[in-house]
Amino acid sequence: MPDVAFSIDYTRSMFDQDIPGHNRWHPDIPIASEVSPGDEFRIECLDWTDGQVKNDDSANDIRDMDLLRCHVLSGPVGIRGAEPGDLLVIDILDLGPVPQSVGDLPGQGWGYTGIFSKVNGGGFLTDYYPDAYKTIWDFRGQQASSRHIPGVSYTGITHPGLFGTAPSAELLAKWNERERALIARDPDRVPPLALPPDETNALAGALDRGSAEFAKVAREGARTIPARENGGNHDIKNLTRGSRIYYPVHVPGAKFSGGDLHFSQGDGEITFCGAIEMGGFIDFGVDLIKGGMEKYGVTTNPVFMPGNVEPRYSEFVCFTGVSVEHSTNTNEYMDATLAYKNACLNAIEYLKKFGYTGEQAYMIIGTAPIEGRVSAVVDLPNACCSLYLPTEIFDVDIRPSADGPVTQDRGQVAITS
Amino acid sequence: MPDVAFSIDYTRSMFDQDIPGHNRWHPDIPIASEVSPGDEFRIECLDWTDGQVKNDDSANDIRDMDLLRCHVLSGPVGIRGAEPGDLLVIDILDLGPVPQSVGDLPGQGWGYTGIFSKVNGGGFLTDYYPDAYKTIWDFRGQQASSRHIPGVSYTGITHPGLFGTAPSAELLAKWNERERALIARDPDRVPPLALPPDETNALAGALDRGSAEFAKVAREGARTIPARENGGNHDIKNLTRGSRIYYPVHVPGAKFSGGDLHFSQGDGEITFCGAIEMGGFIDFGVDLIKGGMEKYGVTTNPVFMPGNVEPRYSEFVCFTGVSVEHSTNTNEYMDATLAYKNACLNAIEYLKKFGYTGEQAYMIIGTAPIEGRVSAVVDLPNACCSLYLPTEIFDVDIRPSADGPVTQDRGQVAITS
Amino acid sequence: MPDVAFSIDYTRSMFDQDIPGHNRWHPDIPIASEVSPGDEFRIECLDWTDGQVKNDDSANDIRDMDLLRCHVLSGPVGIRGAEPGDLLVIDILDLGPVPQSVGDLPGQGWGYTGIFSKVNGGGFLTDYYPDAYKTIWDFRGQQASSRHIPGVSYTGITHPGLFGTAPSAELLAKWNERERALIARDPDRVPPLALPPDETNALAGALDRGSAEFAKVAREGARTIPARENGGNHDIKNLTRGSRIYYPVHVPGAKFSGGDLHFSQGDGEITFCGAIEMGGFIDFGVDLIKGGMEKYGVTTNPVFMPGNVEPRYSEFVCFTGVSVEHSTNTNEYMDATLAYKNACLNAIEYLKKFGYTGEQAYMIIGTAPIEGRVSAVVDLPNACCSLYLPTEIFDVDIRPSADGPVTQDRGQVAITS
Amino acid sequence: MPDVAFSIDYTRSMFDQDIPGHNRWHPDIPIASEVSPGDEFRIECLDWTDGQVKNDDSANDIRDMDLLRCHVLSGPVGIRGAEPGDLLVIDILDLGPVPQSVGDLPGQGWGYTGIFSKVNGGGFLTDYYPDAYKTIWDFRGQQASSRHIPGVSYTGITHPGLFGTAPSAELLAKWNERERALIARDPDRVPPLALPPDETNALAGALDRGSAEFAKVAREGARTIPARENGGNHDIKNLTRGSRIYYPVHVPGAKFSGGDLHFSQGDGEITFCGAIEMGGFIDFGVDLIKGGMEKYGVTTNPVFMPGNVEPRYSEFVCFTGVSVEHSTNTNEYMDATLAYKNACLNAIEYLKKFGYTGEQAYMIIGTAPIEGRVSAVVDLPNACCSLYLPTEIFDVDIRPSADGPVTQDRGQVAITS
Repeated sequence: MPDVAFSIDYTRSMFDQDIPGHNRWHPDIPIASEVSPGDEFRIECLDWTDGQVKNDDSANDIRDMDLLRCHVLSGPVGIRGAEPGDLLVIDILDLGPVPQSVGDLPGQGWGYTGIFSKVNGGGFLTDYYPDAYKTIWDFRGQQASSRHIPGVSYTGITHPGLFGTAPSAELLAKWNERERALIARDPDRVPPLALPPDETNALAGALDRGSAEFAKVAREGARTIPARENGGNHDIKNLTRGSRIYYPVHVPGAKFSGGDLHFSQGDGEITFCGAIEMGGFIDFGVDLIKGGMEKYGVTTNPVFMPGNVEPRYSEFVCFTGVSVEHSTNTNEYMDATLAYKNACLNAIEYLKKFGYTGEQAYMIIGTAPIEGRVSAVVDLPNACCSLYLPTEIFDVDIRPSADGPVTQDRGQVAITS
Repeated sequence: MPDVAFSIDYTRSMFDQDIPGHNRWHPDIPIASEVSPGDEFRIECLDWTDGQVKNDDSANDIRDMDLLRCHVLSGPVGIRGAEPGDLLVIDILDLGPVPQSVGDLPGQGWGYTGIFSKVNGGGFLTDYYPDAYKTIWDFRGQQASSRHIPGVSYTGITHPGLFGTAPSAELLAKWNERERALIARDPDRVPPLALPPDETNALAGALDRGSAEFAKVAREGARTIPARENGGNHDIKNLTRGSRIYYPVHVPGAKFSGGDLHFSQGDGEITFCGAIEMGGFIDFGVDLIKGGMEKYGVTTNPVFMPGNVEPRYSEFVCFTGVSVEHSTNTNEYMDATLAYKNACLNAIEYLKKFGYTGEQAYMIIGTAPIEGRVSAVVDLPNACCSLYLPTEIFDVDIRPSADGPVTQDRGQVAITS
Repeated sequence: MPDVAFSIDYTRSMFDQDIPGHNRWHPDIPIASEVSPGDEFRIECLDWTDGQVKNDDSANDIRDMDLLRCHVLSGPVGIRGAEPGDLLVIDILDLGPVPQSVGDLPGQGWGYTGIFSKVNGGGFLTDYYPDAYKTIWDFRGQQASSRHIPGVSYTGITHPGLFGTAPSAELLAKWNERERALIARDPDRVPPLALPPDETNALAGALDRGSAEFAKVAREGARTIPARENGGNHDIKNLTRGSRIYYPVHVPGAKFSGGDLHFSQGDGEITFCGAIEMGGFIDFGVDLIKGGMEKYGVTTNPVFMPGNVEPRYSEFVCFTGVSVEHSTNTNEYMDATLAYKNACLNAIEYLKKFGYTGEQAYMIIGTAPIEGRVSAVVDLPNACCSLYLPTEIFDVDIRPSADGPVTQDRGQVAITS
Repeated sequence: MPDVAFSIDYTRSMFDQDIPGHNRWHPDIPIASEVSPGDEFRIECLDWTDGQVKNDDSANDIRDMDLLRCHVLSGPVGIRGAEPGDLLVIDILDLGPVPQSVGDLPGQGWGYTGIFSKVNGGGFLTDYYPDAYKTIWDFRGQQASSRHIPGVSYTGITHPGLFGTAPSAELLAKWNERERALIARDPDRVPPLALPPDETNALAGALDRGSAEFAKVAREGARTIPARENGGNHDIKNLTRGSRIYYPVHVPGAKFSGGDLHFSQGDGEITFCGAIEMGGFIDFGVDLIKGGMEKYGVTTNPVFMPGNVEPRYSEFVCFTGVSVEHSTNTNEYMDATLAYKNACLNAIEYLKKFGYTGEQAYMIIGTAPIEGRVSAVVDLPNACCSLYLPTEIFDVDIRPSADGPVTQDRGQVAITS
């Protein structure tokens, strides 16, 4: 087991750790520890919500989620010798749920998936599923199954949702500028177009909460929801064991942080809290490519190489969507987001014929190792996306046949009271 | 070899065939032949441009392309017993280049890829690559390589770009309505937001060009560029040998047509004429699921199952993009199209470090079996897409390393004069 | 389509072709045509038995097979510049059943599998299945299914059973010497330990049957059944489209010949005539590595690289066997042949529980893309082999479960009269 | 983390544990703990030699290995309700090296591979490599590499070499009878044909070493080297995470035991101590199929289903061998063991051209995830086996080319003093 570069007491909130992590991106957050190129190290993580979700049958905790506390990130870890312009080479050696028995937090044999309500962030299909729902998943080795969604079980493609390097002050300023401009296009939109810096519940590592440094971080620090030039909340399901990621370095020492571990997720993480969320640990190897950004033309986002132990399925039922809002017969131009939305809706309607509720189907395609592909983006006016659903994860044959689907009552996910 | 349900004289234009195909979607185009559920049949196809592109080193033919002649489709083939509401089950048994020696048309051992100029349709990255370019690819079994892009070779994921059923009159009217509304948002845009019906060079199968029926088809017939509720120009690379597609049936007899065969293509077909285009043949099996649309909740686009003989690669360098226009630091909300555009641009910049020109790199990711994934579409405000580039297709090691890339002069694709 | 280097009139026996092929290995068989490194060429092939098997429901033709006519090989094709010590680089560009409509020979939409009777060659399990049986398979694209074995269907891993270079006179002498010595250990064994040269029904390409040269070939020529240092009857199922094989060159010009095309086969080809046998065509690319045998230490058998379009299955029920003759409780030392035999028998017993007859099960594991692995060969005294049976090829769920197998009457294969 | 059903103090020998395991198969060894169908449980394991091998650069420990102490097995674990005739359903949920820091034993970040000397067990190629050699491998996540074999690195296919159920008294008697008969064929052979029961260093779980029960176990207990009807030392590399195995139950409670964890291994485990050997932990799920042996026709060896997270490689250089002893030009009949031996020798000769010593090459193909296939076993007189070597595990391009191999000095493995 590698040395622990960021340690968690799993019985306590991230705010109450001896050395807390952080929940905003800012260059002034001090490093919690330091490693050298060639090292291996472990980072321990709480689930992204800091333990706000319980293993029960009510979605109230999802409905009432305080997003200003999220994501709680472990780090930063400084990398000796890293300078702006380098590529930070990160190997994901291993990761998994909480390895000790410490109580009933996510990662102790279970994880959760939430559909957020439209008034609290929403999700990809929030216009169709505006209320809060929750599913609890049980782990059995690498397999996930749920009392809330019977008849489906799959090998998790376990990965971290969010890791990244610290932005420089200049880069952070660019983020805040462009996101404020976006918000200004429709400031009252629900859900909002973006989330601006917010001092409430900001957390800045070891910085003293009364200090001027802390106030600066809280005032300027970028929210952790999106992926940006530092990596961040990629939610790329394929970054599983054996993957290597090349992160741009923007500040001396790189200041590498992250968390948001996922037991499994489908492409798109479509319900927003859409993976099977958990706390746990992740083991890394680290190296540097000096001057790598210029050498390899990396100006914006990380480059990566996936590992070779992803779960392997070989038979899929696939759904397509094009960039048309069918309910109103409105055509959008080359809108891959809308096309993928339609592919998801088509998959959900299909699964409903087998007895799944819409919410169950929505959570299946959010969490199972489905593939979401940009199939065509030049055939004007219609982008076309496709969604690959492995047939082997179901306990019934879901392939289309002349006999039609066998419908069963499959209950429902957890709802709010 | 199955019976030929649509036969081509490869030495002649689609306009001059004994029974011509068509290049507009319309329910009144008469069937060219008829098959029964359970049958196997062959359809012969010209390349999508009706032979407008030559095997030479000038991109003038791409620049001067007459898009009003495109796509030339083979069919329609009627399916006995098919009624609206059914699912037409189509198996792709085999497909390939022109199997006879008939002269130097695409599919005779070679195919082409074009970057269209911005004033003639453009492509996915037309703001970055506004001029016309061409690449000729040579086939060797299932392998493609090119004198215009040395050092790259790959197994083609051969598939048809475009097959579909005929729309009903009502469905056609909906298409024309919504696409006209889209055009009206910015009628002078270059390239246009959509292509309206246009009588010029319309082709309507066996209909007499002087007839009232022909005039109606020419006046109303939908252009073939986009994918729609009938299938159409999906450009889904995974519809290769062994695939099964379930098409919605909108008219009696289904009226199944298509063409636009591709020797290979990457997800997105990003250069527009972005696959390796060819003429050839395709063998189908056919069946029906009576009432299948209702049975399986299929209201808009086809469902499919990919075959199990896709080319298999196991090592990839991957590029990510988010929905930010980096040149102006402008953020768009959850725009997967922009995110994928950035992933493509990042891949191109990377490959340029190895000595490929931007146009060469653009055509590599357009034609090689790269995967384009919708990685995250809920992390507001940034969609994140990723592009998987197999390393094994290159003759040099393209993985990032401390030594940096080995740059070589690799010439250039065909340009205009 | 490449030039045809060896042409077949499919309506005639190999003995009656304008330029016949051959059915013995000998350096003196003259080449039928010549190609150069860099060329692509087609070879047309009859099925290995020269058309002795009919598409009917009797196994009499299998029982009465004349093995002295087999295998009928197409060639030799001379390779310009090839010299002893070179490696002949052969790419399998394409292959398939007979592409024209010429009558009801194997490869015209169907193929066959035979269990040979013990008195006429036998098969791997001839002590358990001593009589002759036959199964006819129908092709549908790349899929095979059979009226004789309902409920199973799979994607064929199409490949040539037998290709090779000509032996030198010295090498041929070594073969004959060692095989005669083997036969001498038990000359009356049924089936025989090996097959010696036999003049009956020998065929030697263009050599005049009355000539001294012909007589020499007939007298000395090695039988084509086994694989040897020239390649030969490898029956390696993975040599499908896209494969590259490096054959040792033993005579000037290499003299490349072959045939015995298989629509599909499992590892081991266990029923002897154990693939789905057919006539057809095969397209090759050719090159040379001068002095390659010494460069790469190739002294005996060919080296190869499989292609990347093999059928892909992801779920398997697997059977193991060890080197014990269980019926007599006799232990053999590290006998992988016996271990694999037991794995096959265990698979057959398992499938019988689902209603397949032993002969049906034997033919399934002979023809479907099952994998046969040498699992352990050092754990004295027991070798252990394993057999991987893909579950997706069956129309019922064959995975073990608490409920036990669902048994159905599935008829029987063709028997003798 | 599941409950620990068999616990190890990693700082002590198996002989000195509070509840020791065992190193013979016998029905009278008492269970160490008990679990129920549906449970998950962990078993902790020492390496198979009970810590006889050190992380150093001398092969003396391999040479001097006491085989009578091996394999040290953890267990037996009783399964409530299991009866003879049932199938014991075992899921491999997880496994890995020693998870705590306890000193320098195998599994603490490293493992070893040994070539045993001919006078102490030998290996598959002992006639070619009669002396003792050792390689130490370092683990980095799921990757293995070695200071003794530079330039090669691969993802381990981690699995247990040996698990099984206890034999009944009748079954044990059959084993001893048939193995004694085998030994009697050549009692002085070096290495021996099989290993008879031997009281020296026998270990029988919690049985008191002075008791009559212990003496009976020591006198009758079957050695653990081979795979037999109870499972046992299968050394099947594909039994990695996610696998499910169906073991025959021969005694009430099944009495499930095992160990011999491998970080990686190639098919055949050819150097005998041929995997990357380690101590560690393994997590299981357990269930029963009552009467499963009869239901599924399982009379001898276990059935299994491999998991879907095996390391995935897509390019291979493959070697073939036939059943001929080439040095003496002697033909054996259908001898798959000899054929695989030749395939291994051919692979070794090939790798030597790149600068690897024979011992290094022997250990590469013993430990890397190579596949060993029974390609043809009916083409009399020659069996044909093939060995698939993934190209991606090497730091140089090992594919054959006109330029020939690039030879480098790569040192040597650890030798004896």
